[in-house]
Amino acid sequence: MSSRASGRRRLDPAERAAVLVEALPYIRRFQGVRLVVKIGGSVMDDERRLTTFADDVVLLRSVGMLPVIVHGGGPQIGDLMERLGKRPTFKDGLRVTDSETLDIARMVLVGKINRDIVGAINRHGPLAVGLSGEDAGLITAEAADAALGFVGEVEAVNPSILERLLAESLIPVVSSIGRDRDGQPYNINADTAAAALAAAIGAERIVYLSDVPGLLADPEDASSLVELIDARAARRTLSDGNVGGGMAPKLRSCLLALERGVRSAHLLDGRVPHVLLLELFTDEGAGTMVVHEDAGDGEEDICR
Amino acid sequence: MSSRASGRRRLDPAERAAVLVEALPYIRRFQGVRLVVKIGGSVMDDERRLTTFADDVVLLRSVGMLPVIVHGGGPQIGDLMERLGKRPTFKDGLRVTDSETLDIARMVLVGKINRDIVGAINRHGPLAVGLSGEDAGLITAEAADAALGFVGEVEAVNPSILERLLAESLIPVVSSIGRDRDGQPYNINADTAAAALAAAIGAERIVYLSDVPGLLADPEDASSLVELIDARAARRTLSDGNVGGGMAPKLRSCLLALERGVRSAHLLDGRVPHVLLLELFTDEGAGTMVVHEDAGDGEEDICR
Amino acid sequence: MSSRASGRRRLDPAERAAVLVEALPYIRRFQGVRLVVKIGGSVMDDERRLTTFADDVVLLRSVGMLPVIVHGGGPQIGDLMERLGKRPTFKDGLRVTDSETLDIARMVLVGKINRDIVGAINRHGPLAVGLSGEDAGLITAEAADAALGFVGEVEAVNPSILERLLAESLIPVVSSIGRDRDGQPYNINADTAAAALAAAIGAERIVYLSDVPGLLADPEDASSLVELIDARAARRTLSDGNVGGGMAPKLRSCLLALERGVRSAHLLDGRVPHVLLLELFTDEGAGTMVVHEDAGDGEEDICR
Amino acid sequence: MSSRASGRRRLDPAERAAVLVEALPYIRRFQGVRLVVKIGGSVMDDERRLTTFADDVVLLRSVGMLPVIVHGGGPQIGDLMERLGKRPTFKDGLRVTDSETLDIARMVLVGKINRDIVGAINRHGPLAVGLSGEDAGLITAEAADAALGFVGEVEAVNPSILERLLAESLIPVVSSIGRDRDGQPYNINADTAAAALAAAIGAERIVYLSDVPGLLADPEDASSLVELIDARAARRTLSDGNVGGGMAPKLRSCLLALERGVRSAHLLDGRVPHVLLLELFTDEGAGTMVVHEDAGDGEEDICR
Amino acid sequence: MSSRASGRRRLDPAERAAVLVEALPYIRRFQGVRLVVKIGGSVMDDERRLTTFADDVVLLRSVGMLPVIVHGGGPQIGDLMERLGKRPTFKDGLRVTDSETLDIARMVLVGKINRDIVGAINRHGPLAVGLSGEDAGLITAEAADAALGFVGEVEAVNPSILERLLAESLIPVVSSIGRDRDGQPYNINADTAAAALAAAIGAERIVYLSDVPGLLADPEDASSLVELIDARAARRTLSDGNVGGGMAPKLRSCLLALERGVRSAHLLDGRVPHVLLLELFTDEGAGTMVVHEDAGDGEEDICR
Amino acid sequence: MSSRASGRRRLDPAERAAVLVEALPYIRRFQGVRLVVKIGGSVMDDERRLTTFADDVVLLRSVGMLPVIVHGGGPQIGDLMERLGKRPTFKDGLRVTDSETLDIARMVLVGKINRDIVGAINRHGPLAVGLSGEDAGLITAEAADAALGFVGEVEAVNPSILERLLAESLIPVVSSIGRDRDGQPYNINADTAAAALAAAIGAERIVYLSDVPGLLADPEDASSLVELIDARAARRTLSDGNVGGGMAPKLRSCLLALERGVRSAHLLDGRVPHVLLLELFTDEGAGTMVVHEDAGDGEEDICR
Repeated sequence: MSSRASGRRRLDPAERAAVLVEALPYIRRFQGVRLVVKIGGSVMDDERRLTTFADDVVLLRSVGMLPVIVHGGGPQIGDLMERLGKRPTFKDGLRVTDSETLDIARMVLVGKINRDIVGAINRHGPLAVGLSGEDAGLITAEAADAALGFVGEVEAVNPSILERLLAESLIPVVSSIGRDRDGQPYNINADTAAAALAAAIGAERIVYLSDVPGLLADPEDASSLVELIDARAARRTLSDGNVGGGMAPKLRSCLLALERGVRSAHLLDGRVPHVLLLELFTDEGAGTMVVHEDAGDGEEDICR
Repeated sequence: MSSRASGRRRLDPAERAAVLVEALPYIRRFQGVRLVVKIGGSVMDDERRLTTFADDVVLLRSVGMLPVIVHGGGPQIGDLMERLGKRPTFKDGLRVTDSETLDIARMVLVGKINRDIVGAINRHGPLAVGLSGEDAGLITAEAADAALGFVGEVEAVNPSILERLLAESLIPVVSSIGRDRDGQPYNINADTAAAALAAAIGAERIVYLSDVPGLLADPEDASSLVELIDARAARRTLSDGNVGGGMAPKLRSCLLALERGVRSAHLLDGRVPHVLLLELFTDEGAGTMVVHEDAGDGEEDICR
Repeated sequence: MSSRASGRRRLDPAERAAVLVEALPYIRRFQGVRLVVKIGGSVMDDERRLTTFADDVVLLRSVGMLPVIVHGGGPQIGDLMERLGKRPTFKDGLRVTDSETLDIARMVLVGKINRDIVGAINRHGPLAVGLSGEDAGLITAEAADAALGFVGEVEAVNPSILERLLAESLIPVVSSIGRDRDGQPYNINADTAAAALAAAIGAERIVYLSDVPGLLADPEDASSLVELIDARAARRTLSDGNVGGGMAPKLRSCLLALERGVRSAHLLDGRVPHVLLLELFTDEGAGTMVVHEDAGDGEEDICR
Repeated sequence: MSSRASGRRRLDPAERAAVLVEALPYIRRFQGVRLVVKIGGSVMDDERRLTTFADDVVLLRSVGMLPVIVHGGGPQIGDLMERLGKRPTFKDGLRVTDSETLDIARMVLVGKINRDIVGAINRHGPLAVGLSGEDAGLITAEAADAALGFVGEVEAVNPSILERLLAESLIPVVSSIGRDRDGQPYNINADTAAAALAAAIGAERIVYLSDVPGLLADPEDASSLVELIDARAARRTLSDGNVGGGMAPKLRSCLLALERGVRSAHLLDGRVPHVLLLELFTDEGAGTMVVHEDAGDGEEDICR
Repeated sequence: MSSRASGRRRLDPAERAAVLVEALPYIRRFQGVRLVVKIGGSVMDDERRLTTFADDVVLLRSVGMLPVIVHGGGPQIGDLMERLGKRPTFKDGLRVTDSETLDIARMVLVGKINRDIVGAINRHGPLAVGLSGEDAGLITAEAADAALGFVGEVEAVNPSILERLLAESLIPVVSSIGRDRDGQPYNINADTAAAALAAAIGAERIVYLSDVPGLLADPEDASSLVELIDARAARRTLSDGNVGGGMAPKLRSCLLALERGVRSAHLLDGRVPHVLLLELFTDEGAGTMVVHEDAGDGEEDICR
Repeated sequence: MSSRASGRRRLDPAERAAVLVEALPYIRRFQGVRLVVKIGGSVMDDERRLTTFADDVVLLRSVGMLPVIVHGGGPQIGDLMERLGKRPTFKDGLRVTDSETLDIARMVLVGKINRDIVGAINRHGPLAVGLSGEDAGLITAEAADAALGFVGEVEAVNPSILERLLAESLIPVVSSIGRDRDGQPYNINADTAAAALAAAIGAERIVYLSDVPGLLADPEDASSLVELIDARAARRTLSDGNVGGGMAPKLRSCLLALERGVRSAHLLDGRVPHVLLLELFTDEGAGTMVVHEDAGDGEEDICR
């Protein structure tokens, strides 16, 4: 006869039961639900954050969700260019991508960052498979703007390789490289690519993890977090120009995803540990949730 | 733009994340796991307890477990006998069951208590199906002792109807009536029936919900709960006779289940709200866990 | 070398061949056909009749039909009420059902009669499974008339549990208890419930077994059996009021079943041994057959 | 309102019910059971007999049996040879088969008799498919005796084409032509071929329809029919030489089939209308049944 | 160490690679494609031709095509009639078919020629299964012209037996005998039957193998082969009457097949060894290809 | 009417038919056969070679083979190291791989060469999917030699991701990076990795494409090609040291593959256009074939 009591102080049983009773309906509801998570290059700089992120992704899958990861890697591409003595050129804030830059971007995204995410997840078992948009024709690209070189936009998505991997309960990790109809590769903005993939696989949610708390009512005031916003208000905010730093393109991608059938989009602070779990499995959520105009609170759908 | 903050005080995010990170591996591990829950007649006297119990059972199923419910009903049988002016006769503490008593038992168990449990679960949807051991030949009984009349023991279990219902994600609710090979019905002790069914369907766990906290080291001292005991120690405790009130037959049923391949048996206090969730989804568990002699702590198997 | 000749006098081979040649096409035609058989409480009073009935049901299934049994139990409910000193109240010929009466009805129907039928069938093997309309949401009820208390009407049928059991070649035996959307149980007229279930599972035939020969042209003259009647004539007969005793509600249920797609309804004398076989497998049939107005003889469909 | 009474005198309901109650268990028992029926050339000479035979075969299939037909055609082959001015040569009672005779046999069996049986069955629907042992490698033959020319014995059976057709509920009709490993066709005795096919498909029964009542204890006395004989007695009878006319080779084929796992073999009088139904679906059977030595009566296996 | 060099002179590697690079796309394209091949009685007179034909059919199937063979047999029918002293009567070039002639035709086609083709193919394994239109109701016929007797036309095709055999990768070999709705057999022109079967199974191609090179622009000039013709030109050629000998009915069958959805029809010289392979797997093809009017060259569809 | 004759001179029909008749049995035989093709970094330097290689791989798949591509990339890794000013260090001819070198190797292999092969194949459709040994736990590595740093050997292969992709008729393209049990990536020799993968998926053949003609009896004499060698002779040759340049490790990998169940290994000259087709689909083959000691010629297995 022995006791199973552990050393550290614990919540009392009623408190724990309350969290479980709150979480289980979400878990039930999310069974088999598809979810695209875009993780930004800046979040992955910290090894511990990457580990916690991978843990959370594995937990989501373990309770029956079907996550697809899309990643960026801007800072890391810049680093390698610099090491190779190549000076980035920008046009209207977008990196001009010549053939050599494209090779570098591809090597960094597919050959380094994607590998690191796959590796972090697969410490839990043979779960993740890395892809780029070139694999099995996943993303067909087209030139975004001749002046930008090999910067592409998503022309079409063929999600069948994602469907196959999801059907096997695998976790696809996607680098946002695509090919045009002539076989020319292009580098594609990962926020937009994530939205296009979410739409193509019928994801219910898309989550953007970056290094800010979410959408701020006042970009200067970190405490002015907007918890819930609908598409109409989001469009108005964008046209008012009242959106801070890198948040505008993310908000646009959210709207794009919603227009194509995704049910809600979430802007979360990737620096908060387990922010994915808090968003998905608690009533309060986290960060900013963007919903359809006629969606009401969007959380009432828990009851079956 | 609105806030989703709710009125009541909440645990802070890190606390909630901690419960989730603790619970999710159990949830993962219990996917598709079969579980027999025996609920005693005394627990069901309170309508609110029945409702909470039904809620928990639905939650278990919603996260992928496959629960089978077995119920008793001694007090309720006594009530109807009394109303019909029939005086119970006991022999060595067991109710002597003549043909009329059997009819009464069957009506109360199958026609009343089983119906109430099925009804409470089905408020959540068309989930539960009531059965007795007579349906589809589930339980073949034989007379336990000629002097006791139609009190039966489990001779054989044909679990195919349970398999079929579980395969459809339905929740079987079983009254412990069986038939012998000549078609004669018998009333069977529900604790033993639960153990036999658990073995027959390859349940990983069996849980007994009654109105005591579990096995007590000192039957007089409610604070002397034994949290973990292995089969050898349990047998010794039984032969020492140091087991309080109705706990001895339950402990014997636990051992029976373990001998036939069930991995652990649990004696829980059915009066504690959500005690099933606390037992299954937290590290500390609840009540008394009975394990195989060579099982160690029995909780180490969370990691995949 | 020995002879297989049996003792008792036999039909000559040509006679036997004639019965077989007549029966086999019906057997072929009824392969996989669904059939609802409502058996009245009065028929089951005689143990031998119940046995023969169970034998016939097993034979039907053994040649590929898919029977569903629905049973009544009025007399037996009355008996228990009396024993409990409870005086039945009737309003317009319908039993007023207070909460206690409902409990009694449920115990008698689900806990006694249903069990007896299941038991009689299962003497042939693990074939029958007892259900009430509460199981897996089979019958959603609504109050028939506030003045009658918990007497319900069928609001909706969710036949999926029947489909599942039929798919496994099991024989469902249904007690006509339902629940309303708030979880309140109701006692439902078994004739109507049988018609609603027949419609919901796409049964081709519905058979009512009671203790009269069928519909009589002259209710006073047992030899005036109507062998065949179409829906229009049946409605006229009902409106003429020229229908004896308990036959009117049965005839109405027949019409209800026909309106919802059942192909023919049969009023048979449950006291005639093997009346089910004679009706189904011989050219002459038995009792009264109710068909659609445009159905002609209804038997011409034997040829494939 | 009309009566369904038919004109001709009928058995009374109890008599008809008795036949059905007797037949239905056989029908149940024979569900999915495979049966090889060898029909002799002499039986088919009468067009009406062929029609009744085809009707019976369709009835067997319609109640779930899986019949395979094998046919002979000796008299008809002789006819065509004669018309072509070709004189049959016999050696030890077996037809010497030169290349031209083989061509004639093949044309008559495959191109005429097989076609007639297929045609008679298919008047009931697209049910029968004609085969010879050459199709899909069904029968590999080898020369029986160099002196006999292209008279073959069964060397091997590849039943997959039969399995495929049976799986589609089709009725294979087989002409007993085979090919050796070099592609040379051979004419094979149809009685033996039937036994080999029955063994290869795991048939439970094999039936030989010829123009005699069965095995006679005294070949001169048509009333001395042996109703039941076991393998040992049959072998003794054969070695005693006390077997009339063409019955000896049939009895040998029966023994062959039994040795290879067929459960019983039946020698029936193909001139009795519906003899197949009488044999299969009544307690008394018809003709001679040959069973394994340790089989007892062989009919006790009706109860499931 | 040894050399694998073979004795005979070989094409050089580049030449062989060129043939393969040319053939492989056709092979890819024809995977799972259905093809009806009609082989004329005259082609089969030569044993070696029959062997080569069977080899080619097996090769087609081995690379994934689904060939169905239809055969004629006019000359062989004439031979047997003559041997039986029966003088053929013709009306407008069509053989008048009395009951005896029909029997002879059936015996020759089903019992001889069909057998020979099945045998030749099955030397490669258990691949071919012989059928006539009577099997499983494959071809329903009707009288073509009362004056011609039992000469039939295709009234309907029930391709399910072909579908079943093709689904098992078997090669059906069909004799063009059909039955009318009363069960009367008819002899049917094999060219027309082939076209009707091709349409019924959704064949992509139909090939006629006869003893002429194809359609000739000048029937007198064997070098005037028309390699490609569209349906409109073919109809015009037919109405011009400028079609030699037996080619007109074949060309009409080609048009019939095209009208019912077959994509191209081919008139090939069955005397050229491996002409089927050359037609299917090389750019140049062989013989005459008949295509839809709007088909262009018909070969552009190789690229996927 | 038009001619389909093409401009360029063609082989005559008999020659073409001969190539087809020779190739088709191989095509038949290779249906569903798995094949690992290792392509060396040097072969891929020429863009046209990569294109022809991709074409051939697509052709193999189009006729039903299941190719898996493994690639190297030594020269290309060296290039990037040089551009980054990093000097390669070698120890016993093996590149010492520090953490930075590993990152470079991974970027070049996964992010550049793998992408180029996938891209070249996918010009034909969405067929190829790039992988490294890190994906879904494909290759578990262990350090080869502490002095070499992150140079790994294959410890275990988990082929399930390959199985899944092959089951979908996709073409996996694998970079030879693996992870050890702690998640540390390693660069692995691609020749060895190819052999291990071939064994793990039960490949029938493994092909090494490099820039030499195959194994030479005299390493100095390019005309001394060994066409066929068995494992014993190959081992002797290796121990004699009589193997030129980079051929020794390839020959060792061939032996490794054979030991683990691969049926034959092939050393081909990747500079010869369509060398894969010539090897697989012609009797003469190409390059050097390594077979089991008891294999005889190894080509006799064409006949089914």
